[in-house]
Amino acid sequence: MARSGVCTLTRGVSAALRDALAPTAWVTGDDMQPFLAEWRGDYESHALAVALPTTTAEVAAVVRACAREKVSIVPQGGNTGLCGGAVATPEQVILSTQRMNQVTALSVQDNCITLQSGCTLLQAKQAALVADRYLPLSLSAEGSCQIGGNLATNAGGVNFLKYGGARDQTLGLEVVLANGEIMDGCSPLRKNNSGYDWKHWFIGAEGTLGIITAATLKLWSLPDRRSVVWLGFDSFRALLDCFKSTRQAFGNTLAAFELIGQRALDFVLRHVVTDSPPIATAHRWYALVEIHGSETEVDAHQVFAFFSRKQFEAEIQNAVVASSERDAERLWRLRHAISEAQRAEGISIKHDIALPLESMPDFVARTENALQAIAPGCRVVCFGHIGDGNLHYNVSQPIDMPVAQFDNMREAIQQTVYETVLQHGGSVSAEHGIGLKKRALLEAQVGRTAYQAMQSLKQALDPQNIMNPGKVL
Amino acid sequence: MARSGVCTLTRGVSAALRDALAPTAWVTGDDMQPFLAEWRGDYESHALAVALPTTTAEVAAVVRACAREKVSIVPQGGNTGLCGGAVATPEQVILSTQRMNQVTALSVQDNCITLQSGCTLLQAKQAALVADRYLPLSLSAEGSCQIGGNLATNAGGVNFLKYGGARDQTLGLEVVLANGEIMDGCSPLRKNNSGYDWKHWFIGAEGTLGIITAATLKLWSLPDRRSVVWLGFDSFRALLDCFKSTRQAFGNTLAAFELIGQRALDFVLRHVVTDSPPIATAHRWYALVEIHGSETEVDAHQVFAFFSRKQFEAEIQNAVVASSERDAERLWRLRHAISEAQRAEGISIKHDIALPLESMPDFVARTENALQAIAPGCRVVCFGHIGDGNLHYNVSQPIDMPVAQFDNMREAIQQTVYETVLQHGGSVSAEHGIGLKKRALLEAQVGRTAYQAMQSLKQALDPQNIMNPGKVL
Repeated sequence: MARSGVCTLTRGVSAALRDALAPTAWVTGDDMQPFLAEWRGDYESHALAVALPTTTAEVAAVVRACAREKVSIVPQGGNTGLCGGAVATPEQVILSTQRMNQVTALSVQDNCITLQSGCTLLQAKQAALVADRYLPLSLSAEGSCQIGGNLATNAGGVNFLKYGGARDQTLGLEVVLANGEIMDGCSPLRKNNSGYDWKHWFIGAEGTLGIITAATLKLWSLPDRRSVVWLGFDSFRALLDCFKSTRQAFGNTLAAFELIGQRALDFVLRHVVTDSPPIATAHRWYALVEIHGSETEVDAHQVFAFFSRKQFEAEIQNAVVASSERDAERLWRLRHAISEAQRAEGISIKHDIALPLESMPDFVARTENALQAIAPGCRVVCFGHIGDGNLHYNVSQPIDMPVAQFDNMREAIQQTVYETVLQHGGSVSAEHGIGLKKRALLEAQVGRTAYQAMQSLKQALDPQNIMNPGKVL
Repeated sequence: MARSGVCTLTRGVSAALRDALAPTAWVTGDDMQPFLAEWRGDYESHALAVALPTTTAEVAAVVRACAREKVSIVPQGGNTGLCGGAVATPEQVILSTQRMNQVTALSVQDNCITLQSGCTLLQAKQAALVADRYLPLSLSAEGSCQIGGNLATNAGGVNFLKYGGARDQTLGLEVVLANGEIMDGCSPLRKNNSGYDWKHWFIGAEGTLGIITAATLKLWSLPDRRSVVWLGFDSFRALLDCFKSTRQAFGNTLAAFELIGQRALDFVLRHVVTDSPPIATAHRWYALVEIHGSETEVDAHQVFAFFSRKQFEAEIQNAVVASSERDAERLWRLRHAISEAQRAEGISIKHDIALPLESMPDFVARTENALQAIAPGCRVVCFGHIGDGNLHYNVSQPIDMPVAQFDNMREAIQQTVYETVLQHGGSVSAEHGIGLKKRALLEAQVGRTAYQAMQSLKQALDPQNIMNPGKVL
């Protein structure tokens, strides 16, 4: 693979660029395919070449060469992003961090891990586990997504409620700037008020301001017991009330409060999980709740007692507490299978949105009505991380409507959803980022002044516009 | 006060500037004194005038007028900063947020509060309390420090270990930029990956990039029970081991793990608290531990059992568990009285530093030796937030050494402490910021590349350099 790469590279890439890395660290031609495939197939990607540096110095060398040659760079981690942030054009170099996969330090005393950005999330979590430590960031793509991409997109995931997202779990970064200079901020320090905290400029910037080459992440004690509960509700408001009282009762031991709409569960039971449902009676909304214990914290009995009492008080219509780790896994399987189940029902138009909890019941009712007017019979699959105010609001095509006809309604549907989100004080991108997909929405989301301020930062740090140009802004 | 202000103002301030606010919103002459007094008396402050806007629009009007007139602005909250960040020169306007003290929204469902930046921390905490909510940020200056200043300096405080600092508790900001434009990012959303997360540019920037006019802060459930424990250790290493096992056992219910050196306790018992010490035997190091319970979490019995076991295992040399809220207060009083007690022992040279926990025992031993070589008989008072890696490392003058002689050693002492901090991978500013005081240290702390990148951001957002010029950078 490397050799064929070298041959092709000489055709399209200048010697100056080529010399920035060993020949075996360049990939070109058909060998680039894995780096061009896009997760959801929404974008066609090309590239001049793919660079596979192993060290930060090599990343800097590539960036300097690209800056000199005025070739722009698309940084790429595991290539699992959902908004096209790692898609390139035929004139661009993809800089993949795939080979930068070393864990460089782990301190139990300081409760942190330092690693190169090309480590997969799973690899990082396992390295922590070996030291009896816990890295809480959890995504379904964890086997292939990389820490650098998690940070560049500020990944959220299922543990956000208790531990926060990628940003909150970061103590420091090492970054290569657009001029090829290296800023090393990897550090176990928890407090450091020394000037502007520049790591936050790069987290969530999707590679448009610099390339994250290494990071120090916080670790936690392993949660040594979990209680998992499945709840049924007949109204969204009741579910929110229950979230409020659960949060009040369990505080920071509440690790997840996930929403599953009735249709999402129906799809899962039809296509993926052939079990009987956790609760025999159908409800409009379900919540999947996970509470983490530790030696001294919660125990299963208290969890059971709390949710039993809430049923007596009619705050919950129905509740099942997993009585074993196997049952807990089965309940979570229902949550994780939603995307797969939805694929079996035809195409769907997806929205990753955030809303103030207070406005969610109104948002859900209004949007459903508006969408039925646009695409009668469309089937809203609404689920997500309710504890974080994050909905995955996916609209499946009406049964029997031709795909092309529904696809023609895409723009109208998205516009309706996003406009309603903005009217309710929400966000059009909760956890997936902007990338290419939501660029046109950004200014309406953040306002003209903030948009221009973002442009100022981009201009200041990347005046030649060689860092993932055309993404985000 | 306002009338005399107006009269004086016409002398030094152009009409264009004066017209930005109502006459009663300007203070000049002697009436400016409260805004010029500096907390520790380290700096002499002056000002052209003090502006007291009430609304964000008024702040923007002042900024626009100052930008036109090329008058620079020193934003000021409660004026309790410790690094001179709110000190002004005779040519500068101090913009005080004192009158911007309205709480504008509180949502129990979304668990957040939105307020103008001139609210005092105490006022914000009390507003939360009325709604049965908890705002955890806690500083000794909470009665006078303001939210805007807390955010501009990224305040830490005693609850950092469990809740993080000002940055971590912030959901969104409203900021007036150097061109007078307003960015409104106040929002209850917990997840929002819409472009660059600009609130982080301003948190900790000490007013050099813009003026924080409002904020949305996270709230929590009230901790309904606390256990407070006083521990004695004969080595720093033993104390760190105990921190590690306590964190492991109590996870996120561990709210504080404070360090008190033997000399700090001696000073307190000599000058402030005339009680007998919590533990009759003297130890080299003490820790004050607070564990927060809630309905389902920890209880006092478990705390007692844990620390008793640790005594049997000889990890702790001595332990006292507060048996009442009154005892808990008495233990905390010993911690809070340290600064006051140290004043009674003459002058001291103070350092607010952070270190990796792993390097702390070596740092403490080496620095003490080096300082004794410089100032024989100097008395190191070492205390702080060990759980956050943050030491307050204050050097009291030797007994019987004249003040002037010790003051002459200030530079050598500070240089020794800061150099040793940097050698150990620490930070010369853990929680107090840079301000004027530590400007000369910043480049060595963050490195040349990061320093230049900070200058780029400053230049991009404040090209005229009118926002608190000369602070931080």
